[in-house]
Amino acid sequence: MRNEIKIFSPATVANVSCGFDVLGFCLDTIGDEIVVRKSKEKGFRITRIEGFELPLNPLENVAGVAALALLNDINLDFGFEMEIYKKIKPGSGIGSSSASASGSVFAINELLGRPYTRHQLTHFAMKGEALASGIEHADNIAPALFGGFTLVKSNAPIQVLELPSPKALYATLIHPEIEIKTSDSRAVLPKQIPLQLAITQWANVGSLVHALHTNDYQLLSSALQDVVIEPYRKGLIPHFDSIKKQSVLAGALGCGISGSGPSIFALSEGLATAKSVEKSMRDVYSKSGIPFNTYVSKINSKGIKIL
Amino acid sequence: MRNEIKIFSPATVANVSCGFDVLGFCLDTIGDEIVVRKSKEKGFRITRIEGFELPLNPLENVAGVAALALLNDINLDFGFEMEIYKKIKPGSGIGSSSASASGSVFAINELLGRPYTRHQLTHFAMKGEALASGIEHADNIAPALFGGFTLVKSNAPIQVLELPSPKALYATLIHPEIEIKTSDSRAVLPKQIPLQLAITQWANVGSLVHALHTNDYQLLSSALQDVVIEPYRKGLIPHFDSIKKQSVLAGALGCGISGSGPSIFALSEGLATAKSVEKSMRDVYSKSGIPFNTYVSKINSKGIKIL
Repeated sequence: MRNEIKIFSPATVANVSCGFDVLGFCLDTIGDEIVVRKSKEKGFRITRIEGFELPLNPLENVAGVAALALLNDINLDFGFEMEIYKKIKPGSGIGSSSASASGSVFAINELLGRPYTRHQLTHFAMKGEALASGIEHADNIAPALFGGFTLVKSNAPIQVLELPSPKALYATLIHPEIEIKTSDSRAVLPKQIPLQLAITQWANVGSLVHALHTNDYQLLSSALQDVVIEPYRKGLIPHFDSIKKQSVLAGALGCGISGSGPSIFALSEGLATAKSVEKSMRDVYSKSGIPFNTYVSKINSKGIKIL
Repeated sequence: MRNEIKIFSPATVANVSCGFDVLGFCLDTIGDEIVVRKSKEKGFRITRIEGFELPLNPLENVAGVAALALLNDINLDFGFEMEIYKKIKPGSGIGSSSASASGSVFAINELLGRPYTRHQLTHFAMKGEALASGIEHADNIAPALFGGFTLVKSNAPIQVLELPSPKALYATLIHPEIEIKTSDSRAVLPKQIPLQLAITQWANVGSLVHALHTNDYQLLSSALQDVVIEPYRKGLIPHFDSIKKQSVLAGALGCGISGSGPSIFALSEGLATAKSVEKSMRDVYSKSGIPFNTYVSKINSKGIKIL
């Protein structure tokens, strides 16, 4: 069994338009790198974090809390050290904390010879996620650990479904460098919603799952609608409507808020279209004066990868 | 081209627990028989109805209104006569009016050499359905015309998705001979629902569609939950909770209200289990003093059949 491992832990998109709180998918080109090694000293230490300023104290770090949740479950006469090379900006809405939490428990599980299933790792990683968001949820953790598209059927007990996805599906993302407070993105959500809108939303969720199973891009496009959450949250993201309009004009199948924002995702058939969509997004934000980054990525069907 | 056709137009189950207003499936052993023949006289006449007392005037009959919607769309120098042998009791909650409306347009389309697609037939049949329910909806018409499990993604324009279903899936139904007024079954529905319940419901709809694609009976079972509508409507159906409890104890994957009731459906893996479920349902109602009928049926993957 190896004593050290280096992994790539990907960014993820949660919610995916109609699938608020349940759907997510995994990205390929954006992610953190994490090095974990066994140590003679028991317990768990984070020895280095690069990229963004985050606490080294495991109890204050999502990767640390996730790791400790796992290590509290197992009896070992040795410990672990971790280095985190953070590439995903915290608060960007593409699963930064999930990448750290998922990568942490994935890497430790590998070094232990995989005693835990991915469902169990999801459970541990959710403890870390809760440190960042205040709630144990798996909508970013599931796609990071399972890869591809995932549907979180339930959080307690955790039940993740692995959905297939068409091979030529690409995501385009824009991350406007603004801060949306978690409290704000929650506060705008309604507690009650009209039954008629809920029906439209679950028709779209069912249609989206069917479209993924049947490689039906046209259906996927028509199912990528969020009539419930987006109308409330889009006001927190400057130029959201323009980004969406221009993305679709550039050929995107659909466009929506990534997680609770501020990042915006679009899905496209084929890399060329995804790049046209990226250009259309850049054109909108270039005029805004707001700093931003864009990414194009294949859907990552594997999830976390060993480097 | 033939001048006369006899068809079997099946009963159907709409809503299917979590899939309120969008999901439905088709039954095999219960249905109306309809005979349609060309006539030299133009227009459309219903010459005979057996089984239940229903109006012969096409404008007052769902099969007639559906037929006229089709015939108004096409120029013919001949007409049609129809005989309806009604086996499905109107108001039973298993798509009685849909069977008549769907069968009517299906049969005429066959005699015309199939100028219309099933989506177009759905559109015409919905005009008939509207006479019975006051609303144009396709949640019983779609499974009758397409067979199997269907998801009505939208009503205007009509978009029906054909979902696969596991081969060993059987339905058990109990029809308590009570009347639920459509106005009552609508009046109990909330206009607003909690967002959290809506999320649970669309997680279940997505899971149900995935379960149908993957032949996953266990997932199908856990997805067959209705947290939104059933709590409001079950009070209209005597002994609903007992039927549900005993069905599941007898091995059913799930149990819910068929359409807007009063019929109750259960789904099971295998005919033997479906028959045990039938017995458990009969045991509950035998003590009630309420007259009832039960049925066991394979999922009908074809829909309407030519006899």
